[in-house]
Amino acid sequence: MPVYNAPVKDFKFVLNDLLGLDKMTNMPGFEDATPDMIDAILEEGGKLMSEVIQPLNQVGDKEGCTWKDGEVTTPTGFKEAYDEYRAAGWMGLDADPEYGGQGLPHVIGIAFAEMMSAANMAFGMYPGLTHGAYAAIHKHGTDEQKQTWLPKMVTGDWTGTMNLTEPHCGTDLGLMRTKAVPQDDGSYKITGTKIFISAGEHDMADNIVHLVLAKIPGGPEGIKGVSLFIVPKFLLDADGNPATRNGVECGSIEHKMGIHGNSTCVMNYEDATGWLLGEKHKGMRAMFTMMNAARLGVGIQGLSQAEVAYQNAVIYAKDRLQGRSISGVKEPDKPADPIIVHPDIRRNLLMIRAFTEGARALGLWAGLQVDMVEKHPDEEGRRAADEALSLLTPVIKAYFTDMGFELAATAMQCYGGHGYIHEWGMEQFVRDARITQIYEGANGIQALDLVGRKLPQNMGRNLRQFFHPVDAFIQENMMDQEQKEFVLPLAKAFAKLQQGTALLGEKGMKNPDEAGAASTEYLRMFGLVALGFMWAQMAKIAKEKLVEGADDPQFYETKLVTARFFFERMLPDVSSLLVKMSAGSKTMMELDAEAF
Amino acid sequence: MPVYNAPVKDFKFVLNDLLGLDKMTNMPGFEDATPDMIDAILEEGGKLMSEVIQPLNQVGDKEGCTWKDGEVTTPTGFKEAYDEYRAAGWMGLDADPEYGGQGLPHVIGIAFAEMMSAANMAFGMYPGLTHGAYAAIHKHGTDEQKQTWLPKMVTGDWTGTMNLTEPHCGTDLGLMRTKAVPQDDGSYKITGTKIFISAGEHDMADNIVHLVLAKIPGGPEGIKGVSLFIVPKFLLDADGNPATRNGVECGSIEHKMGIHGNSTCVMNYEDATGWLLGEKHKGMRAMFTMMNAARLGVGIQGLSQAEVAYQNAVIYAKDRLQGRSISGVKEPDKPADPIIVHPDIRRNLLMIRAFTEGARALGLWAGLQVDMVEKHPDEEGRRAADEALSLLTPVIKAYFTDMGFELAATAMQCYGGHGYIHEWGMEQFVRDARITQIYEGANGIQALDLVGRKLPQNMGRNLRQFFHPVDAFIQENMMDQEQKEFVLPLAKAFAKLQQGTALLGEKGMKNPDEAGAASTEYLRMFGLVALGFMWAQMAKIAKEKLVEGADDPQFYETKLVTARFFFERMLPDVSSLLVKMSAGSKTMMELDAEAF
Repeated sequence: MPVYNAPVKDFKFVLNDLLGLDKMTNMPGFEDATPDMIDAILEEGGKLMSEVIQPLNQVGDKEGCTWKDGEVTTPTGFKEAYDEYRAAGWMGLDADPEYGGQGLPHVIGIAFAEMMSAANMAFGMYPGLTHGAYAAIHKHGTDEQKQTWLPKMVTGDWTGTMNLTEPHCGTDLGLMRTKAVPQDDGSYKITGTKIFISAGEHDMADNIVHLVLAKIPGGPEGIKGVSLFIVPKFLLDADGNPATRNGVECGSIEHKMGIHGNSTCVMNYEDATGWLLGEKHKGMRAMFTMMNAARLGVGIQGLSQAEVAYQNAVIYAKDRLQGRSISGVKEPDKPADPIIVHPDIRRNLLMIRAFTEGARALGLWAGLQVDMVEKHPDEEGRRAADEALSLLTPVIKAYFTDMGFELAATAMQCYGGHGYIHEWGMEQFVRDARITQIYEGANGIQALDLVGRKLPQNMGRNLRQFFHPVDAFIQENMMDQEQKEFVLPLAKAFAKLQQGTALLGEKGMKNPDEAGAASTEYLRMFGLVALGFMWAQMAKIAKEKLVEGADDPQFYETKLVTARFFFERMLPDVSSLLVKMSAGSKTMMELDAEAF
Repeated sequence: MPVYNAPVKDFKFVLNDLLGLDKMTNMPGFEDATPDMIDAILEEGGKLMSEVIQPLNQVGDKEGCTWKDGEVTTPTGFKEAYDEYRAAGWMGLDADPEYGGQGLPHVIGIAFAEMMSAANMAFGMYPGLTHGAYAAIHKHGTDEQKQTWLPKMVTGDWTGTMNLTEPHCGTDLGLMRTKAVPQDDGSYKITGTKIFISAGEHDMADNIVHLVLAKIPGGPEGIKGVSLFIVPKFLLDADGNPATRNGVECGSIEHKMGIHGNSTCVMNYEDATGWLLGEKHKGMRAMFTMMNAARLGVGIQGLSQAEVAYQNAVIYAKDRLQGRSISGVKEPDKPADPIIVHPDIRRNLLMIRAFTEGARALGLWAGLQVDMVEKHPDEEGRRAADEALSLLTPVIKAYFTDMGFELAATAMQCYGGHGYIHEWGMEQFVRDARITQIYEGANGIQALDLVGRKLPQNMGRNLRQFFHPVDAFIQENMMDQEQKEFVLPLAKAFAKLQQGTALLGEKGMKNPDEAGAASTEYLRMFGLVALGFMWAQMAKIAKEKLVEGADDPQFYETKLVTARFFFERMLPDVSSLLVKMSAGSKTMMELDAEAF
């Protein structure tokens, strides 16, 4: 019953008006990303989502995947929809033309990923993980490995996975037990058990290319002895076609809170043949290529669940007649007013919208940085993009997914009792969104990554890559009366973020627990200020568009109102977050574990 | 796999040290509530919960209820557990001795309700709803009705329900269509469809006493024409035993996000025989007796899910070995440190605990007011209790349940990926908690009830019943250096709440949408300050106990640290909430519905 309509107009606003993609077609790798091409992708992609992928979202939730004798069957319709998606060439959208991709910018891939996730998050994970595995092989593989594995992954004929977690180790991969024993022919025999492997086994592709972390016996202890391996479900014959079953099997699938349409597998490796990807004992480095892209992708998943939940909550709020407006009857010819007349319903809807539109801007900005890392003509530009992206990745992952869950629940609330019933589809968004706070590094880990790694990294340059542009924008626009309503609160919030950063540097240096204790609140401040920066820029553009007399003034007027809502009703949290993080770690650390 | 242990020590601390129940045994109706009796109830009740009721929580979630031909079968073990609960006489704990109850104070009933809900929320709803129906008949029924229905409800042989919602009307009961046609013998024939009827049909009791809202044809329009009826599943024979099936049937049950062990029924009434309860067209008044008690009960459900989720998260956090403390290895003989060494894990746990212990205090305080309304020796005391309770009921309902959901999700987060898997039981707490924000009046409605009804009610006396004691406490303790760390932040937060209240009065008077726009943030401020008031009192007691050299100093020391955490890390939200609510309704109200 829920629907999804791709927010094409908003995508175009962010891509062209905010990020200036329409002016980048002279950049290497951006030649084909013309406004017409982007329109076509968003329109056609959006249609596929609304008509084919989204209608399977509830089916997937209800049926789930089924496991039998090591085989996994996906829900009714998934295979056919995947065939359609694959046949249209969507898998190769931003993949390297050398391996059959269309070579479009990653930023377009991010927009497409948002649409797919909003339509059907469980479904979107099959190609999503393939994309991650593709990226790791593309970056770290030998030419032969790339020729062997990538073309079929780019078509979507084969899918990919990431195998990190084991029953006793998730965050702490140094505890890993899976081992890889070198063979005379240069291959390895992989043995061990991996858990929580999304898309680990299914019936939609001819082969599954597992990327597996394992330890080569005799290597360094802990995380420094971990290597990454390519381990296909089927070994290939001389022509490169899947032929012999490898020593890997899906032992069972998990029964979980949501994303039922995606198989979450226990994978048993027993003398499975694999090939080293990248360098020996440098597996974490290669894995991080996947993980960073995946973390951005997971952030987008969080955003997507808020977006689709918002769209449906709006429809319901306009349709559901219940009670009368407290400021006087609005629709006297009906038995009651639609609930969208109530300020609290509107507050809920605007909270979601102010988040999704701000997050869409930040997410696409991050997508563009991924392109810049690869394609910026000068080294300084590539490095700057890399540093800014490194810094913002944990913020996007954790802030977007915390909000995605919270706001999907907010949208569900607009339905009253009906929101709690499966049939209406709203509670599924909440359950599906919940995993995004956990996988690819639980959000507490993201916060630690931000304060413990990303802030000090590159001698603080990461931070300056974000703080400088914000500061420059504030300085440039501070005196402009038209922009004051947005720039002033941004400047105040930014000052508090700087204060928080200084505090972290000072206290965290002396005692790392101080940084740990403040990390989650600090990350939330960071997310709010980053969205505030996006909103201030978008509000400025909207005002200019209205002065220019652009088409569709309502779009820009709504943008302005939503911007005001963000600054008035969401950004103020920065103040209390600073107070909270400033309180320090004492209350947290002084209790014995037994006192809890 | 999850466990539950009743927090008996904390119950006793709140009941005796904070609320002084041990000094009230000379009050009428409190004679039997001796410390020994309360100990026995908490210990024995807690044992029943841990050993019998809680082990069925996951069973109930997994199996759910099943519907066949109008009959509902509850999950395996529910009937037997209910028999045990009933046989031990728990149903009558705080019921009127005239109808077989034990006549204990309601405040004890609230403690018991928290334990039951924490152990198994879906199970606890069967007796919970019976309790509500009992209270409505007890207050509004004729002597004959009371003699007929109450004794069997007090034993638990019969259960009760509330029938309000219809497919097209939930919040707005004026739209109701169910009709009640008067018969010559003084009874009515009830016809209509009710939805979302919890425990509407099941296999655990000999009869089900439905309280049904319906309209008598020819009566006033809208909500003023609604009456309440007693409509049993089985009509009674001359001896008062269930005999003939009445014209009411369960048409189907809902498939929902959580509380699978409780049947959520569509109830079809077709010429069902019913009897008017209370006055004609005054059904809402009688229904509110149930609803107010039910709203307090739902608040306690929210608290209970946070409590049980906390207990399990603590066990996991002490047990799970993963990574090392960032301030240096804590358990060098193990492959990793338990995750409870990490400040962010501790922050999560303390957030839950600071809420549950504060909420427990406020919830039991509210339970005591229920007793005072009935039993306080002088009228002024009864009135004061009623006014304070009226004011705090929407706060407890909405704030406790919003936090219950949020914090159950926080506890789940401590489990990483395992939290998302059914088997571990953590995600069930989140799903079960989610309904508490919706039923008995969605939380947005609670916020409107607070600002639109409860604040102005009784010429503002409600508010003074809460503000005066807070103010008095602050004045009394402000100069005490020992108390300053708690009283000062309380005083600041209280001042902001007063500011918010003044603002509401001022702006809301001119434009009701202003009150509506601020209502949710205002309610949250209220909840925080109310918990702050409880925490400041508890901290004071804890300090005194430590000076006295009380037994178990660790209990009081932990109380103090948790109090500090609350004041440092949770109460500061009041500041940003005031800023947000002060922004007014403009951004919310100026958009056309079409712009959303």
